[in-house]
Amino acid sequence: MSMKQIGFADVKIEGGFLGKIEQLNEKVTIGAVYDRFNETGRVKAFSCTWKEGEPDRPHIFWDSDVAKWIEGASYVLAKHPDAELTARIESVIDAIEANQWEDGYVNSYYTTIEPQNRFTVRGNHELYCCGHLIEAAVAYYEATGRDRFLKIMMKYADLVDRIFRVEHSAAFQTPGHEEIELALFRLYRCTRQEKYLTLAKFFVDQRGANTLDQPIAGGIYGIYQQDVPPREAREAVGHSVRACYFYASMADYALETGDEAMAESCRMLWEDIVTRKMYISGGIGSTCYGEAFTIPYDLPPESAYTETCAGIALIYFSQRMFLLEKDARYADVIERLLYNGVISGLSLSGDCFFYENPLEINLRNHYKIKATANQLRLPITQRVKVFGCSCCPPNLNRLLASVGDYVYAVDGDEIYVNQFASGTAKAGGVEIRTETDYPFTGRIKITANGAAKLHVRIPGWCRHFAASAAYTVENGYAVFADNAVTVDFDMPVTAIASDSRVWDNAGKIAVTRGPVVYCAEAQDNGGVDLRTLTLSPDAVGSADILPAGPSGLPELELSALRQLPSAGGALYYPAEASAFEVFKLRLIPYYAFANRGEDDMLVWFTRKS
Amino acid sequence: MSMKQIGFADVKIEGGFLGKIEQLNEKVTIGAVYDRFNETGRVKAFSCTWKEGEPDRPHIFWDSDVAKWIEGASYVLAKHPDAELTARIESVIDAIEANQWEDGYVNSYYTTIEPQNRFTVRGNHELYCCGHLIEAAVAYYEATGRDRFLKIMMKYADLVDRIFRVEHSAAFQTPGHEEIELALFRLYRCTRQEKYLTLAKFFVDQRGANTLDQPIAGGIYGIYQQDVPPREAREAVGHSVRACYFYASMADYALETGDEAMAESCRMLWEDIVTRKMYISGGIGSTCYGEAFTIPYDLPPESAYTETCAGIALIYFSQRMFLLEKDARYADVIERLLYNGVISGLSLSGDCFFYENPLEINLRNHYKIKATANQLRLPITQRVKVFGCSCCPPNLNRLLASVGDYVYAVDGDEIYVNQFASGTAKAGGVEIRTETDYPFTGRIKITANGAAKLHVRIPGWCRHFAASAAYTVENGYAVFADNAVTVDFDMPVTAIASDSRVWDNAGKIAVTRGPVVYCAEAQDNGGVDLRTLTLSPDAVGSADILPAGPSGLPELELSALRQLPSAGGALYYPAEASAFEVFKLRLIPYYAFANRGEDDMLVWFTRKS
Repeated sequence: MSMKQIGFADVKIEGGFLGKIEQLNEKVTIGAVYDRFNETGRVKAFSCTWKEGEPDRPHIFWDSDVAKWIEGASYVLAKHPDAELTARIESVIDAIEANQWEDGYVNSYYTTIEPQNRFTVRGNHELYCCGHLIEAAVAYYEATGRDRFLKIMMKYADLVDRIFRVEHSAAFQTPGHEEIELALFRLYRCTRQEKYLTLAKFFVDQRGANTLDQPIAGGIYGIYQQDVPPREAREAVGHSVRACYFYASMADYALETGDEAMAESCRMLWEDIVTRKMYISGGIGSTCYGEAFTIPYDLPPESAYTETCAGIALIYFSQRMFLLEKDARYADVIERLLYNGVISGLSLSGDCFFYENPLEINLRNHYKIKATANQLRLPITQRVKVFGCSCCPPNLNRLLASVGDYVYAVDGDEIYVNQFASGTAKAGGVEIRTETDYPFTGRIKITANGAAKLHVRIPGWCRHFAASAAYTVENGYAVFADNAVTVDFDMPVTAIASDSRVWDNAGKIAVTRGPVVYCAEAQDNGGVDLRTLTLSPDAVGSADILPAGPSGLPELELSALRQLPSAGGALYYPAEASAFEVFKLRLIPYYAFANRGEDDMLVWFTRKS
Repeated sequence: MSMKQIGFADVKIEGGFLGKIEQLNEKVTIGAVYDRFNETGRVKAFSCTWKEGEPDRPHIFWDSDVAKWIEGASYVLAKHPDAELTARIESVIDAIEANQWEDGYVNSYYTTIEPQNRFTVRGNHELYCCGHLIEAAVAYYEATGRDRFLKIMMKYADLVDRIFRVEHSAAFQTPGHEEIELALFRLYRCTRQEKYLTLAKFFVDQRGANTLDQPIAGGIYGIYQQDVPPREAREAVGHSVRACYFYASMADYALETGDEAMAESCRMLWEDIVTRKMYISGGIGSTCYGEAFTIPYDLPPESAYTETCAGIALIYFSQRMFLLEKDARYADVIERLLYNGVISGLSLSGDCFFYENPLEINLRNHYKIKATANQLRLPITQRVKVFGCSCCPPNLNRLLASVGDYVYAVDGDEIYVNQFASGTAKAGGVEIRTETDYPFTGRIKITANGAAKLHVRIPGWCRHFAASAAYTVENGYAVFADNAVTVDFDMPVTAIASDSRVWDNAGKIAVTRGPVVYCAEAQDNGGVDLRTLTLSPDAVGSADILPAGPSGLPELELSALRQLPSAGGALYYPAEASAFEVFKLRLIPYYAFANRGEDDMLVWFTRKS
C-alpha cells in the first residue's frame, strides 16, 4: 500500500479557519490577483505583441505569475464551474497557443523580446516558467477535462527533453530557479508517460554534476541555490524557495522510485530546516540577501525575510515527506505554516499581500531607516496589492484553493487525519465526516465509515488529550481501530521558548494556543513600547481567552509587567530601582498583524522568570 | 571669581588608572602614532613635494592628524623635555613654515594638489585642519615657549579673518567640520588678541545663518552637522564629533562672553546627549551612517558606532560645561568616558586602536556579514595600528597627555576635586595632595593646604559614602570647610538598568563597579553563548571582586544562570521545560575587551527577575 493524499476536490471543508481562508481566496483573492495581473500587463504579455517604448515591458518571470494564478483558478473550477473564470483562463491559453513556436517553445518574454537568446542564460527563469505552466496545464486538465493547454505543455516538455536531456544543446543543464523538476513529476503522474519521469529525474540528478552550469551568484556565501548532487545534500542553503521546490522534487523522486539515498537526503534537509532554520511562524529564509537560509539558529525577528512563497514551498516539501514517511511531524509543520507564517502573507480583506513576514515591527527603526536614506533595510510594514516581483499572491491562490489536500490521507483502507476542519471527504469506499470548531477548541469528532483504522494526528503542540476510544500511538498519530471517535486536545495558552542557540530569542518567550502563534500590536495596548513588557510563563498559562476579533480567532489577555521610564529621566540607574507596573496585555493571532494601519508588533517577549 | 581647571602641567599623577593611561600614552602611544603617520606619508606631506603617480597621495585631513599628534607630543614636552620629540615637531614646523603662502595660508593638501581651489569646498576639512594646527601651535608654545609655530598660525588666522569675516570671499562661510571655532577661542586665550575672539564668535554666530553655506549631505536625516543658529539648537543631531566640537565652542563662547542664551543652548544640548543619546560607556553617535546621533534612546549595542573621537569631543564639551556650571554631573560624564568608552579605543599594549567602540560582539553575525559580501555592517572586532581615516589615535594622544586637566579645578581659593588619582597639584598658593587606589576602592584622602574650601565630587554612581569631616552637598559635591579630608565612597558591584525607552536594552542589565562598566568575553567563560546567560541584580550585588587582570583593574565573578539547549533539539518548546544551570560568570572591565584575539563580548545581559 502507499500513502495518498485525499485530493482537495474530494474534500469539502465547512467553515472553520481553513474553510474561511479557502473561501476568502475563492471569493476575493483569486479575482484581486487577476485584476492586478491584468492591470500590470502580465496577462496581455502572453499575446507577445509588446513593442519597445510601450509600457508594461514583459518580464522573465511573468509567465510563472499568471501560471500560478491559472493553477489556483483551476482548483476553484474543480469545485464550482465558473464561466467567467473559465473564459479568463481560456483567453490566456488562446494566446499561449497562438504564440507557441513550431518546435513547442512557450515563453512570452523570450518570444517577444529576445527570441534569439532562448536557453542561453541559466538565471533567467525560463524552465521555472515552463514548470509553472506545466502545473497550471495539469491543474486545468484535471479540473475541467480540457486538454488543449496540457497538450501545448506536453509539446513544450518534449522540446525541453530533446534540448536538455538528448541534445545538451542549451547553454546550461539545470535551471537557475528550480520548479520544472516537481512539475515534470506531476506531468508524469497525470499522463503516466515515462519520458516525463525520465526528464524529471534527469534534472534532479544533474544538479551539481554538470560543468555546463555556471553558479548563480548572489546571496549568503554567494550561494543562490544549492548546486550539490542531491544525494549528498545535508544542509539547507541558498534561496529558500528554490531550495524547497528542489527538495520537494527530490521527495517526488524518492516517492516515484524508492531511491533510499534520495529519501535520506530529504529527511536530513527537512530536519535541518525545522530544527535549526525555521521561525516559530514556520517561516524560512531569514535574510533578504539572496532570500536565503543562513547559518543555523540565525532567526532575527525584525529583519526576518521569511518570504510567503518560501513557507508555501516548505508546505509542498513537507506534504511529500509525509507521503514518504507517514509521520505526523510533517503535518505539524504544514499546520504551523497554514495558521501562521503563510497566511500572514494575506490581508484579512483578502486582496493585499506580504512578500516578507517579519516577527517584529519597531516603527522607530523604520523611521531611522528612512532617515538614513534606506542604507539599512527592514521588511515593509503594510501589505500591498501587487509587487514588481509578485510571485507570492498567486502562490497563495493555488495553495489556498487546494488547502483540502492537506486534511486527509489514505493508505489502503486506513485514513489519516492531518488537519482538523469540519466537513466531509471521500476516498474510495470510505466516507469521512469531521465536526470541530478547531482551533477554538481541540475537540474533534471524526467518523470514517468503511475505514479499517483511523490515524489522528496528535499535534506537536499538544501535551495532553483524551479520546473516546482505545488507541495506540504510532509516528505521532493516535491510531484507532474504531472508525468513529472523538478526540479532545487540551489547548491551553502556552509560553514557548526557543532553543537557547537562537541568539535573537535568548531570554524570550512567545505565546501560543494550539497551532496559533500570538503577537501584540501597540494599538491594542495603549501605544506602549511593547519591548518594555515582561511575561512570565505562569501568567501566559493563566491568560484569558477572549472572543474572536477581526482575525476570526480568539484574542488573548494576560497579565504582564511593564517597566516604566526611570524616575527623573536618568538614562542608567541601579536595577533595583526599576519601577514596574502590572499591565493587561492584549494579544491577537500573529497572522492578523498589520491589518489596522502601521503599528509596532512583537512576538518574542522578555521572559520574566 | 571664575572656575579654572588646574592645567595638566601643574598636576602630577602618581600611578593608579589615570596615571597608567597617561604613562602608556607617553611611553608607547605617542611614538606608535608618529611611526604610523611617518610610514603612511602623513608627516612627509607637509613638505608639499608629492607628485601625481607617487604613493601616499596627501589627503584633505592629514594636516589635522599630525596636528593632533603635535598637540599631544607638546603636552608630553610640557612635563619632560625630550630632544627627539622636539626635533620631530620642529621638523614638521620647518616644513609648514617653508610652505606657508605669502598671505599666510597653510594646508599641505591644497598647496600640493589643488592650490587654485582653496576655500571653495565647504566639506573639505580646510578650516578643521587650520583649527587643529592652531591648537597644536598654542600647545607647543605653552609647553616650550617657542613661538615660531604660533606666529605661523596667527598669520594664517589673520588670513582666515580677512577672507571669511571681512571680505566674505570664500565659497562658504562656516566650515563643514567644526573645530576652528574652539581653536580660535584657545588662540584668543593664549594671545589675548581680541581679533581672535571676534573671529571665533563670528564662526559660531554664522552657523545656520548664512546662505552661502551649502548643506553637507549625508548621515541620518541627511544632516551631517548641525546648521541651525546655535542659540536655537536644542537637540544633538548629526555627526557626533562635529557636533560636540561645535558645542564645546558654544560653551567657550558663553564662558568668554557670559552670553546666557548660548549657555542655555549648551545646557539643553548636553542634557539631550546624556539623558537620551549616550551609551553606558559614555560613547555617543550610535550609527555609522554619518557617524551620527540618531533618534532618542536608539542605542543598539552591537552596531554601536561610538567613535573614539566622539567620546573625546564629549569630554571637551563636558569640561567646558563644568567650568560654566560648576556641577559635578559634567565631571561624572568625563569619568564615564575616561574609564570606559574612550579608553576602549586604545589597546592594552598602547599601539592599536578602535575607531568604533561596540558594546557587543557576536562573531556569528560577523560571519554572516562576510557571507553576504558585507552588505550589512558591524564595527571591526580587533584594534588596528592605523586607519585610512586615522583621527582617533592622535586624539587619544592629546587627551591622555593632558588627562591631568580633568582632575582638579580652582575657583578663587576653593578647590574642586573632579577625578580621583594619587598625586599632587598646585594652584596659586594651594598645594594639593591626593592619596587613593581608586578605582580599586573608593577611599580618597585629600589635603589642600591653603584652600578655603574643598569640593569633592560625589560620583553619580555612588549611593553611600562616609567622610572624615562635616560637609554640605552642593551641585553634586561634598563641600568641606576643612582642607584635609578622607572620603570613602561605597563601591559595590551594581546591576544597572537602562531607562525603559532604550529599546535595545529592554529587560537587560549591565554590571558596573564604581566608574567601571564590565563585560564578558566568551574565552573567560568556556566559550558559552553569552546571550544564554541570565543575571539577577541580587547575584550581581554579591559578585566576587577578583584581583586585577591584564586590564590592571579588578575582574569579577558572579553566579549567573545559563539556559541549556533544548533536550531533544526541538527548536521551540514549552517554556516551563527550559533547563538552566548555575554558571560562574567571569567579567572583565569593558574597556579591556578584544585584547586577546577575536571573541564574543557582551555588556547587556538578560535580567533575571
